[in-house]
Amino acid sequence: MNRLMLEAIVKRALEEDLGNGDPTSEAIFTENFVAGGVFLVKSPGVVAGLPVVGEVFRQIDPEVKFVELVKDGTPVSPNTEIATVSGPVKSILAAERTALNFLQRLSGIATKTAGLVKLVAGFPVRITDTRKTTPGLRILEKYAVLQGGGSNHRFNLGDAVLIKDNHIKAGGSIREAVQRARAAIPHTMKIEVEVEDENQAREALEAKADIIMLDNMTPAQMAAIVRLIDGRAIVEASGNIDESNIREVAAAGVDVISCGAITHSVKALDISMDLR
Amino acid sequence: MNRLMLEAIVKRALEEDLGNGDPTSEAIFTENFVAGGVFLVKSPGVVAGLPVVGEVFRQIDPEVKFVELVKDGTPVSPNTEIATVSGPVKSILAAERTALNFLQRLSGIATKTAGLVKLVAGFPVRITDTRKTTPGLRILEKYAVLQGGGSNHRFNLGDAVLIKDNHIKAGGSIREAVQRARAAIPHTMKIEVEVEDENQAREALEAKADIIMLDNMTPAQMAAIVRLIDGRAIVEASGNIDESNIREVAAAGVDVISCGAITHSVKALDISMDLR
Amino acid sequence: MNRLMLEAIVKRALEEDLGNGDPTSEAIFTENFVAGGVFLVKSPGVVAGLPVVGEVFRQIDPEVKFVELVKDGTPVSPNTEIATVSGPVKSILAAERTALNFLQRLSGIATKTAGLVKLVAGFPVRITDTRKTTPGLRILEKYAVLQGGGSNHRFNLGDAVLIKDNHIKAGGSIREAVQRARAAIPHTMKIEVEVEDENQAREALEAKADIIMLDNMTPAQMAAIVRLIDGRAIVEASGNIDESNIREVAAAGVDVISCGAITHSVKALDISMDLR
Amino acid sequence: MNRLMLEAIVKRALEEDLGNGDPTSEAIFTENFVAGGVFLVKSPGVVAGLPVVGEVFRQIDPEVKFVELVKDGTPVSPNTEIATVSGPVKSILAAERTALNFLQRLSGIATKTAGLVKLVAGFPVRITDTRKTTPGLRILEKYAVLQGGGSNHRFNLGDAVLIKDNHIKAGGSIREAVQRARAAIPHTMKIEVEVEDENQAREALEAKADIIMLDNMTPAQMAAIVRLIDGRAIVEASGNIDESNIREVAAAGVDVISCGAITHSVKALDISMDLR
Amino acid sequence: MNRLMLEAIVKRALEEDLGNGDPTSEAIFTENFVAGGVFLVKSPGVVAGLPVVGEVFRQIDPEVKFVELVKDGTPVSPNTEIATVSGPVKSILAAERTALNFLQRLSGIATKTAGLVKLVAGFPVRITDTRKTTPGLRILEKYAVLQGGGSNHRFNLGDAVLIKDNHIKAGGSIREAVQRARAAIPHTMKIEVEVEDENQAREALEAKADIIMLDNMTPAQMAAIVRLIDGRAIVEASGNIDESNIREVAAAGVDVISCGAITHSVKALDISMDLR
Amino acid sequence: MNRLMLEAIVKRALEEDLGNGDPTSEAIFTENFVAGGVFLVKSPGVVAGLPVVGEVFRQIDPEVKFVELVKDGTPVSPNTEIATVSGPVKSILAAERTALNFLQRLSGIATKTAGLVKLVAGFPVRITDTRKTTPGLRILEKYAVLQGGGSNHRFNLGDAVLIKDNHIKAGGSIREAVQRARAAIPHTMKIEVEVEDENQAREALEAKADIIMLDNMTPAQMAAIVRLIDGRAIVEASGNIDESNIREVAAAGVDVISCGAITHSVKALDISMDLR
Repeated sequence: MNRLMLEAIVKRALEEDLGNGDPTSEAIFTENFVAGGVFLVKSPGVVAGLPVVGEVFRQIDPEVKFVELVKDGTPVSPNTEIATVSGPVKSILAAERTALNFLQRLSGIATKTAGLVKLVAGFPVRITDTRKTTPGLRILEKYAVLQGGGSNHRFNLGDAVLIKDNHIKAGGSIREAVQRARAAIPHTMKIEVEVEDENQAREALEAKADIIMLDNMTPAQMAAIVRLIDGRAIVEASGNIDESNIREVAAAGVDVISCGAITHSVKALDISMDLR
Repeated sequence: MNRLMLEAIVKRALEEDLGNGDPTSEAIFTENFVAGGVFLVKSPGVVAGLPVVGEVFRQIDPEVKFVELVKDGTPVSPNTEIATVSGPVKSILAAERTALNFLQRLSGIATKTAGLVKLVAGFPVRITDTRKTTPGLRILEKYAVLQGGGSNHRFNLGDAVLIKDNHIKAGGSIREAVQRARAAIPHTMKIEVEVEDENQAREALEAKADIIMLDNMTPAQMAAIVRLIDGRAIVEASGNIDESNIREVAAAGVDVISCGAITHSVKALDISMDLR
Repeated sequence: MNRLMLEAIVKRALEEDLGNGDPTSEAIFTENFVAGGVFLVKSPGVVAGLPVVGEVFRQIDPEVKFVELVKDGTPVSPNTEIATVSGPVKSILAAERTALNFLQRLSGIATKTAGLVKLVAGFPVRITDTRKTTPGLRILEKYAVLQGGGSNHRFNLGDAVLIKDNHIKAGGSIREAVQRARAAIPHTMKIEVEVEDENQAREALEAKADIIMLDNMTPAQMAAIVRLIDGRAIVEASGNIDESNIREVAAAGVDVISCGAITHSVKALDISMDLR
Repeated sequence: MNRLMLEAIVKRALEEDLGNGDPTSEAIFTENFVAGGVFLVKSPGVVAGLPVVGEVFRQIDPEVKFVELVKDGTPVSPNTEIATVSGPVKSILAAERTALNFLQRLSGIATKTAGLVKLVAGFPVRITDTRKTTPGLRILEKYAVLQGGGSNHRFNLGDAVLIKDNHIKAGGSIREAVQRARAAIPHTMKIEVEVEDENQAREALEAKADIIMLDNMTPAQMAAIVRLIDGRAIVEASGNIDESNIREVAAAGVDVISCGAITHSVKALDISMDLR
Repeated sequence: MNRLMLEAIVKRALEEDLGNGDPTSEAIFTENFVAGGVFLVKSPGVVAGLPVVGEVFRQIDPEVKFVELVKDGTPVSPNTEIATVSGPVKSILAAERTALNFLQRLSGIATKTAGLVKLVAGFPVRITDTRKTTPGLRILEKYAVLQGGGSNHRFNLGDAVLIKDNHIKAGGSIREAVQRARAAIPHTMKIEVEVEDENQAREALEAKADIIMLDNMTPAQMAAIVRLIDGRAIVEASGNIDESNIREVAAAGVDVISCGAITHSVKALDISMDLR
Repeated sequence: MNRLMLEAIVKRALEEDLGNGDPTSEAIFTENFVAGGVFLVKSPGVVAGLPVVGEVFRQIDPEVKFVELVKDGTPVSPNTEIATVSGPVKSILAAERTALNFLQRLSGIATKTAGLVKLVAGFPVRITDTRKTTPGLRILEKYAVLQGGGSNHRFNLGDAVLIKDNHIKAGGSIREAVQRARAAIPHTMKIEVEVEDENQAREALEAKADIIMLDNMTPAQMAAIVRLIDGRAIVEASGNIDESNIREVAAAGVDVISCGAITHSVKALDISMDLR
């Protein structure tokens, strides 16, 4: 994770949750009241976001001590203590909700990703995210996907070319669209083409696309195209792939399966912070 | 929605998704290529976030015209067109992903909220959110809860006092904790106390708490406390309430049911932007 | 005080006062020239803002050591040393004006507040600020009011409902305006109604307003309404209340007196920083 | 006024006062409720800040129409209407407090400045501000001083050299301190020296200081030094000068009188916004 | 160019150059003084930056009208008018220096790039920039390179993998370094390896590097490696290539020549803004 | 250098160059891989920017240790080690390009300045920069000019009055323009007038301009005007002065020579960072 980005994201989250301060703690706790506690995972899952929690506490109060007991990416069973925290109780409570909001969401993403990765075990395929991430949290969510055993797709529009149907229509043909793109972009950038059938796949291959994305196809269609391409381009499957059909897609021989749901439809992992 | 906050959130989201620009569209479309399209809901749900989408397009390019066909808060069936967009195709495509990321998430929240609201139909109870929102998007997510027929809980730590077990221990008693808080806070601020049993509820009532939160109780326990309080404080139920038990909780007579899952574990509503 | 907000306010103040740097000190002092000094109050008053001064020095140069000799909220007589500073003289002088600008203004507010609080001694009434604060400094000025023995009113428009004449006209009646508000706001938020006479006060009481503000009334009118309300709502007096009439207002039995002048028309407390 | 700075200051002030929005107006007014109103000065004074108010309304809602009826710098008598506003009532009320907070403070500064300027009428002297301004508002407060007929001193530490006692001690002599400064600074920058007696004034003059500041002297001492300097440097009087003694100081023949109180100890001018 | 980034860069530049405003124009021009002028190129070169100038004027004052007479990328001879400007003279002069600072630097880059591109005419090679750009202006400088007929290298560290000697040492071999990278990065990202001799080039090719960078080699060495690679990877030449040897390098058959000097050592193009 | 400004400039530069992080180092280096290196100057020049490099490393990773071996302003011969760095190699490499981009540009400016200063050795004249600096880097570039033995001109438009031909035309005469300016500006601000011939120079002198700028004159014209002014104002030469004619200009007796090229057309000094 890029540290400067992490700092900025955490700062905004704290500003949002603190408002003008925490009148409850201010009124009730004396200045030097200290406490310790643990972060406890209550459902099975994969942990992600502990360094983010560390940054949350650091920004609230450098006197708070936060210790990771496991590393991000660790699968844990219920009732696992994953971190401890100690220090001024006012500071710990002021940071609690923000810390958990990050940790539960990112662990939810890692857990969902790990579930899909497990389903395709044995196939030489990577599960990747998409750009369907929560606005403002992309870099963290893509980090969480890695912790769950997944891989990343492009981070933003400027990272790689992705030619879709509208571009093809405007260009007149896949060949022309790819040529225009290749002439304009850095030589360090790849070109991906989204195709709807085998003819388009062949055309993309001939245009020397680096990656060919098969959009909403059946596993049988995918398998045919994989044979056609035969390693001359990376083949990515995308569109309505979930727990119910991902193993079939993997079996079709694609190199990459991208899945929006691992970031856009996530169940937070159940984690609490318990003070002693 | 506070317009200044909306502008800032949308700006950050666009910066995140644009990176250094959109090389695909830059290379392939000519400068004056225009297009029109629709936003199409593909699953049943409640729409929320159209003004956010309007702001996304406004920031990308003031020449893009975005027209809402329904108002936020409208329940829609599959294949409903909810908005149209027209203008320079480069601008529309540059904004598409960010627009949908907001719209699908906020509509997912409104849809989930509306589902819970429907389950408690007939009871004089409000369903509210919590502070378990996505870091950086709280104001939008709380807006989406309203569109789904829910109500809001406090926006941040500084909005109201919420006395929990740690505060009670530090204060020595509920009475003392409430007194310390009341002396310190603005007279415009309410005091809520989280209680674990009927004795604590009685103590909170005697301390003149404005709101008494029943944490993780059975409907029977809740009903007993509702009778005890008898309208002298607002009664809020919280903790592990979901579709399976919410109607029972409502039947116990509480005034408010707060539910973290409507913002922390949401399925994005399936919405696409189709260009013509 | 919320530390993140404090940091941001201090940073802007330093940027404003430093411009492109301090050519005077840069040219004249050698790099390792150190000095020590004291902050000296020269008129009687109540100190507020020492932690802000600490933050000013911390941002300019972590090597500067700043020590508070009294706590904020302490009443002091002339010639009291309230803090010491030591370290690189370039850094101390670069921070001096900004430090004093904060300290003198906040101490002026605390001093003025303490004067009013003293005038109502013996009455069970709180003196509060308003939203008539200096743009950009509200959180600090409200903190200073607390140091002077006052209390705070709402921090911003979003903190509580305050229904005034225009809202009543638009709603058609106090009852209707209060009902609309209650339906829309979080259950954690209070509703205050500003009234101009006893009839309006009765209507607000019947609408179950939490707070009833008596605007620009005579003490006699206030006393009558206090009897009418009889503890069923908080009664706040507002409008043209100053040193000349505040004790009379308190004697009328109101719970709260809000006063804009303690933040909008303040005499800076005379404080200097003297180097040795 | 620098427009970019104005925009930033106004934006921060609105963010501070709006919080999460204005629930009162949101709940009670319908979307298309419009209104008109006037800004009314209720005490005699000099107006300053109307363009700031214009910017406040512009940022809240471009549909609000704000019209200045007088120009900043105009002396007005009580009950003078100085501006009108019309448009969506939600937007007008959301901006009201921020608008008035700026307008009342800046008009208070202009009014206080004009009072001092009037007291020295007939003398060829300018009244200037200092760096004792409200943190974050310096550029606006210095603008208000101009509207009251005063002049500005340096805007920040980087604008001009000001050699004080600590610099003189560190440099060993005024001559040495001035020489070090002159060698280091741009040739476009002036050098001012603060002196405590006639000997120091002579030394500063010989060192070719552009401005000599007489700190806390009696009018008689000042007059002697004015004769000594005889137009070869600008003479500035500073320190504990107020309404009671400013005319005497002017009579001593100084060129400039700088006064911290016109920005640090100001009574807000009484101005209201009345809706019709 | 990404419009949001452009706005931010221009805003910072204006804030830097305006300081507290333009006292010269404020004092001398009346409010409604308007003027018109032209931007005149005085040396031969390629124009780049006119849209940046347009943004500078837009931010200073929307009433200023700026009209481009040529498009960016146009080669011009001395005394060519490339744009006109008209409007309030205060605004035009306040923006002049910032506008020219951008325009002259970016046109200098485009001009220098065009010179190199011309030198390799006839060879199928692209001239690209590097990351050796001016801090804060990278996106504009890379845009200017395109206007001069060049192409872009990666925009930042996160855009593509570039394996250099330190990475190879840490990895143990080129093969191992490339494998580690490929496993970790998105499938949309390319891998470039910097090599020092033919053996390393062969190893990089076998590791399936997308791009092989020849660092500081003679044209003869380059030609040998180009033959070895034979189109199976993109070959980039880098290091100490300038006007004196670039044609020789191109003749060696490389695909890409990257050159830091086109952004780090640039002569501003001589352009003036002349008011009429 | 103002530390707050330095921090902001460095932060933006790092954000620009890091993008979403450094995948190359992340993939290849283990977490605890440390290294050491040196900054090596490879061409003769004057060093400037080492404290900026220190800030770059501090922001990337406080564990990186950076040690300056020479002070800014030191002339060095080729192959001089000017600083060492040690710590986590990932952090060092992530910062390398940004560090060098600052260091090479600022050292280039210092080197070019020093060359001009050397050419006028023996004459009592200062070489200054202008406002023709790189947008966003002015404060650093002016610092580099000082390290090269030059002096600074005004930092921004708000620092001093500079009356040019358009102002003179608008004012009607130099006298009138100067009078308007003097009445409006702080007494701490100087007035400079740009003149085109001896008559204008005389008029500016009579108007008591502090500085008279001779624009694009021959050395003979300059010498005549220097005699006319005879020490009663500072005389500045400007316009098309470079290595070829600067000594002649100095011989004409002017006090100041300002030169845009030392910041707008600079050759980066050749410096590398070599890891061991």
